[in-house]
Parts: sequence; C-alpha cells; structure tokens
Amino acid sequence: MASVTMSMLETYPKSINLDRAKLAAVIDTINACAQACTACADACLSEDMVVELTKCVRSDLDCADICTTTARVLSRHTGYDANVTRSMLEACAIACRSCGDECARHADRHPHCRVCAEACRDCERACQDLLAAIG
Amino acid sequence: MASVTMSMLETYPKSINLDRAKLAAVIDTINACAQACTACADACLSEDMVVELTKCVRSDLDCADICTTTARVLSRHTGYDANVTRSMLEACAIACRSCGDECARHADRHPHCRVCAEACRDCERACQDLLAAIG
Amino acid sequence: MASVTMSMLETYPKSINLDRAKLAAVIDTINACAQACTACADACLSEDMVVELTKCVRSDLDCADICTTTARVLSRHTGYDANVTRSMLEACAIACRSCGDECARHADRHPHCRVCAEACRDCERACQDLLAAIG
Amino acid sequence: MASVTMSMLETYPKSINLDRAKLAAVIDTINACAQACTACADACLSEDMVVELTKCVRSDLDCADICTTTARVLSRHTGYDANVTRSMLEACAIACRSCGDECARHADRHPHCRVCAEACRDCERACQDLLAAIG
Repeated sequence: MASVTMSMLETYPKSINLDRAKLAAVIDTINACAQACTACADACLSEDMVVELTKCVRSDLDCADICTTTARVLSRHTGYDANVTRSMLEACAIACRSCGDECARHADRHPHCRVCAEACRDCERACQDLLAAIG
Repeated sequence: MASVTMSMLETYPKSINLDRAKLAAVIDTINACAQACTACADACLSEDMVVELTKCVRSDLDCADICTTTARVLSRHTGYDANVTRSMLEACAIACRSCGDECARHADRHPHCRVCAEACRDCERACQDLLAAIG
Repeated sequence: MASVTMSMLETYPKSINLDRAKLAAVIDTINACAQACTACADACLSEDMVVELTKCVRSDLDCADICTTTARVLSRHTGYDANVTRSMLEACAIACRSCGDECARHADRHPHCRVCAEACRDCERACQDLLAAIG
Repeated sequence: MASVTMSMLETYPKSINLDRAKLAAVIDTINACAQACTACADACLSEDMVVELTKCVRSDLDCADICTTTARVLSRHTGYDANVTRSMLEACAIACRSCGDECARHADRHPHCRVCAEACRDCERACQDLLAAIG
C-alpha cells in the first residue's frame, strides 16, 4: 500500500529534484523513528530502573524532536534551499547515531530500547543515503 | 507489516487500558494526517492560484501541529491523565474537521487537497472512535 | 521592552478581532510555560529520586508540546476558525492544570518544580482569560 | 526581569558546562525567532501579493520548526552530547541565515518581514556565539 507521504508527493504540482519514491521512503523512515523515540522515552519512564535510563530518555526526546523537524523540512519543496536540507539531515543522522548507541546499550534488558535502536539505525542510514543523493 | 508504532506499544512494560492494536492504528492515522497537512500546505504554496488557498495553508499548518502533538500525547502512558488525552483528541477532531472541510472545497482542482481531505476525514473519525472507547 | 511577539502582531496587515497587546501577552505566557516544562522534565531526569518524578516528567512533556502548538495556533490569523482556537485553549488550560498540580506536589523539594508550577498556573489563567474574551 | 528560562536554568540540579545567563539569553533569542517566523509566515499569507512571498513563507516555516527544536535541545542537560548540540546549532544558524536573507528582500515593503529578518539575524549570531563558546 502506498503511504500517505507518497500519495502527497505524487500530487506536488512542481518539479522535485529527487526521486519521489525514494524521498517518500526516507520521510516515512524518519517519522517512524520520531514515533519510536517518543514511545521509548515514555517506556523508559515506566521502568523500575528508570534511574539507569535517564540519558536514554534525553536522547529519545532530542531525537524525536529532530526527526519530526527533519521530516517537515523534507516535506517542503517550495523555495528549496539545499543548505537547510543538508544541515538538518546531518543533525538528524547525528541525533540518530547518538540515540541508537544509547538505546543499544539497554537493548538486552529492554525490548523498547531494542526496537528504538533499530529505528534509529534505519533512520541514520536513510539520512546518510539522502545526503549522498543530494550531493 | 506491523508498524513501528505497534512494535513499540507491544514493548511498553506496564498496562495500557486500551486495546494496543487499536491505539497503534489511531496514532498511525493521526501521524499520516500530520504528514499530509504539512505537504498540502507546501503544495498550496507552489500553486499559481495560491491567493485562493491561503485559508487552506493556514488550516493545514494548524492541523499538522495539532496532529503531531496529539500523536505524542497518545504515545505516552506513564502517569496517564484522561482529561488531557480527551481534550487533545477533541481538539484534533475539530482541527481535522476544519481542515478537511477547507481542503474539500479545493479537491476538484488540486489533487493534494483531495488526498489531504481524505487524510483529515480518516483522522477525525479515528479521534472520535478513540474518544468513544475512552469514554 | 516590547516582546518580538508584540512587534510581530503590530505588523499583521489585516484586522484581528482581539486586543493585540492582550493576545501578545497570552502568547508570551504560553511560550514561557512551554520552556519551563521542557526544562523541568530535564531537571527531573537529573534528580537522584527520578523514580518519584516520572509522572511529573510525562506531564511536563505533554504540557510543553500542547503549549507550543497552542502558541502557534494563536500566532496565526489568516482564515481564523474560532472552534480550533477555542479547543486548543481548552486543551492547553487542562494540560497546565494537570502539570501544575503534579509539579506543585514536588515544589517543596525541587525548585524547578516550584518555578514550573507557577508557569503552569500563569498559563492556565491566561488561557481561561482568552477563552472568556473570545466568547 | 529574569526570564522563565533563566529561572529554570538556575534550578537545574547538576552542573552545566556553560555560563547559565549566557545560555538562557541564547534560548530566549532562539524562541523569539521561532515566534517571529511563525507570525511572519501567517502575515505573508494575509498579504495581497502572497504569490511573491511563497518562498518567504516556506523559509519561515522551516526556521520556526528548527528554532523550536534547537531551543528544546539547548534546554536539556541530562546526558549531554556535544555533537547533537553542535549540529543543531549549525542547522539553526543556517536556517536563520536563509530565512533572514529572504525576509530582508521584502523588508522595505512588509514590516513583518523587517522585524522577522532582525530576529533571524539576532538568532544566527546567538547560535554562532554559542558554537564558539562550546568549541
């Protein structure tokens, strides 16, 4: 099933200098990571050992905010500025690296950290790939 | 394929007093609407007749912000407060009604408004259904 | 010193059916509350007794998101829809009530909760006053 | 009068490796820019010549989102990661440069663009200064 992201990109009335299917997949991956990070922060707060997870919560909160903003920037094409897009993709890849590393440290004990770490790795890779495509 | 939202909800360590599959579907519907609204606002800005679409852009921006916040609130379960959840679901349903109505007025001419109107209708319904389930 | 909010409202080119100085003050109060809640959530995470503050962190996160979205909705005047504005002001007042109550429970021990509780009370009152003015 | 940002920073329970008054001033400047950009986007939508301002609206929307996220990242100190902070400050400076340049092109005709351009310049400078202080 085509995502809403792809359906919307198909209806954008002007040209986009990126493959629309690829761009839609990246946006969906970033939004999935934002969702995972918001949920992981909350799941950490419900763990008895929350005191060991405070850095994880913080990484999750930053990563959720940065992913949400990056997905929004990538969803806009009017008056495109490559510098802004590039710097947000770089910030997003760095936040996903940081959050993925922190979640990975808790993945054995906390399944939400394991799922979130995977979402962060996918998102970091998607941002790096798009950065390479933009050049 | 299970969404990341469902995978994360399955790993939440404490009880949730709602069906997790239903809740995941609602969150995904709300996030899809946020994405559609962000993209529709931008597509409107690229239309030659943007002057006729300024109310649509504004509705899209409000709806995107409200949907994003509602999905975040619904993704948190620690220290649940039904009053906050309910008021955000109500605000989200109202924003989707308003934005869906405005987009529907332009649906014949602008495919992005048609797709966005459908996303808003789906989201409004999902919010109403969840409000009924919460009671 | 006039806030940027007031300077921007003074330059809005069409009519606004609310007193601009009053509206600017409300937006500033809501944004201050968003800032306090983001900082309080983080300060809670750095407390040794974070396990007693998890509900407070969650309330802070919801309140920060809801305040940020409410301030954005109030900063837009093009294609005004009173229903959307009203429902967000109601949601914001409810979130501030909930977060202010939770922070107040920890105000004696944690100065950040005391300051945040005050910001939430101010914000709740500002939302209620604006709701009354909108009618 | 001390801002809420400063009051909250003063109550943070652990050490922060930056001057708190300086950090509070930067956060306030970034949040003021976010507010200006949200308001400028909306004011542009209400101009009769909106068709000439679509790139400005888009820059405003990106800049508002990026500033809001940057201020949130800077408001968190638990589990500090300098790479994330630095990359968001860089993205914020770039977005403010881009938006400030675009607003400046319309400053003679549109007072909201003039005020917003100043807020963007202030914010860009604040981000650059903080980047230099972080090293």
